Amino acid sequence: MVELEVAEIIGTIAFALSGFYVAVKEKLDLLGIFIASFLTALGGGLVRDMLCDRAPYTFTHLLPSILVIAVILLSTLLKLHLKGEIEKKFYFIISDTLGLVSFSISGALIALQAEFNFFGVVLMALVTAVGGGVVRDILLNRVPLLLISEFYGTVSLLVGAILFGFAQFDISGYLPVMVVFAFGVALRLLAYYKQWHLPKIG
Amino acid sequence: MVELEVAEIIGTIAFALSGFYVAVKEKLDLLGIFIASFLTALGGGLVRDMLCDRAPYTFTHLLPSILVIAVILLSTLLKLHLKGEIEKKFYFIISDTLGLVSFSISGALIALQAEFNFFGVVLMALVTAVGGGVVRDILLNRVPLLLISEFYGTVSLLVGAILFGFAQFDISGYLPVMVVFAFGVALRLLAYYKQWHLPKIG
Amino acid sequence: MVELEVAEIIGTIAFALSGFYVAVKEKLDLLGIFIASFLTALGGGLVRDMLCDRAPYTFTHLLPSILVIAVILLSTLLKLHLKGEIEKKFYFIISDTLGLVSFSISGALIALQAEFNFFGVVLMALVTAVGGGVVRDILLNRVPLLLISEFYGTVSLLVGAILFGFAQFDISGYLPVMVVFAFGVALRLLAYYKQWHLPKIG
Repeated sequence: MVELEVAEIIGTIAFALSGFYVAVKEKLDLLGIFIASFLTALGGGLVRDMLCDRAPYTFTHLLPSILVIAVILLSTLLKLHLKGEIEKKFYFIISDTLGLVSFSISGALIALQAEFNFFGVVLMALVTAVGGGVVRDILLNRVPLLLISEFYGTVSLLVGAILFGFAQFDISGYLPVMVVFAFGVALRLLAYYKQWHLPKIG
Repeated sequence: MVELEVAEIIGTIAFALSGFYVAVKEKLDLLGIFIASFLTALGGGLVRDMLCDRAPYTFTHLLPSILVIAVILLSTLLKLHLKGEIEKKFYFIISDTLGLVSFSISGALIALQAEFNFFGVVLMALVTAVGGGVVRDILLNRVPLLLISEFYGTVSLLVGAILFGFAQFDISGYLPVMVVFAFGVALRLLAYYKQWHLPKIG
Repeated sequence: MVELEVAEIIGTIAFALSGFYVAVKEKLDLLGIFIASFLTALGGGLVRDMLCDRAPYTFTHLLPSILVIAVILLSTLLKLHLKGEIEKKFYFIISDTLGLVSFSISGALIALQAEFNFFGVVLMALVTAVGGGVVRDILLNRVPLLLISEFYGTVSLLVGAILFGFAQFDISGYLPVMVVFAFGVALRLLAYYKQWHLPKIG
């Protein structure tokens, strides 16, 4: 599915960018910046592949790592980090959303292939999409945003849940995946601009 | 071994409950509460299965995840978190102990099957039993209690060591495992009420 | 290659020692000290083996764990932690460097065997050499030094990159590996005493 691949590329770039920003803000050196960008963009997939007992995709295909390197080089050359926060700019929100949803879909599809149950599929969507950012936050001693705010991870869980539901009725192929993709993107953007939050207890 | 399975169920519930409490105390939202409960109860087994190169048990069997969900729903409905600390109540200590020992045993038995050596068996017992809580504490930026206090992890190591010893003399089956189980539970309760601690250096 | 094996043994000892120091400084108890030493020395290899889908070397061979136990016992008996910082002493820097370079080489060689690409080989060198220390720092809630300072991780990446380059031209065997080993050790010592740092951005 070309659309998914394009979305994954855009997502990888957005995730690498957000890793770059965090790293510069935390005053990491060049190696630290590389590790933070790389983990944010590709760490989730690495964890997913360990859980699924697959050869790590990132270590057998070149494109993802090349995207990360390109993002770091370009951002450094263009001194992006001096140009103010990108995290609230429209094009960043869109790219980040494309990444969130396409990564969730690829995680869920791989989990379905591995014959995981409902929770496996849903959590593999989550791990693939947000696992990298969480690992980065752990490294940098930050409480992962995922755990305390917003509707972000929930989009990922819902994408996984719907794909699991589809699989129970043998619904698969291009169209259903694209519908889930569009739904996920719309939901995340809506949640972002309406500032939806999950409830807390207590 | 039905007894072990029952102990694992009780343990899963106790671990999920303790994850729930920590999450509410840290003001996580619903997704965060789910992740914290899930990791505390089942994260250790996931790490164990990655190290042992097995399909993750939690993602191929439904019961563990359903227990976690049920714990969260019931605790929320009953507003358990408003009813004071459970962590020192007798029934919680017992349930938690059953979990600690049964998880340690299952970790050690799986490591023996994978033909790990002494250290592999002992550490796999530890990882299965306390790995989930440690991952949760890492996520939440807390220094895992395991590292600074009490006799908790040591019980797990001892259970692993004894089972490894048994295996060297081809002692296996129902009775020996139950003896180890009873020993572990007794040791942990004794350690708790006598407030045993490991020595520090320096 | 006997030289590599000797270097790995020396490295394991140095890494275990540095874990011991950190643990004592953080006032961990005996179990915590064991876990910190063990992870620092052998945690990187465990992560490597999970990523490469291999049975964990540490859990199928006894020597590494025995070295760790011996280091803890001897350090405790000799009260090493009362004799001032070792971390800047010449023999510690040398041993630590031997560990860094030999672990990087073994990580890269295993990644080449698993047919990983350039980034896989380079990162597997890094993970094997410094992954354990990073996991320990995460557990103890410290920002891993790797991310903020010095040339340490870079040596590891360069060792991986050179070995990957060699493999493209079918250069392998005793001599090339020894040349990389000597290069890595020299580079790290030079970087240490000249206080080289990677640049920061911003």
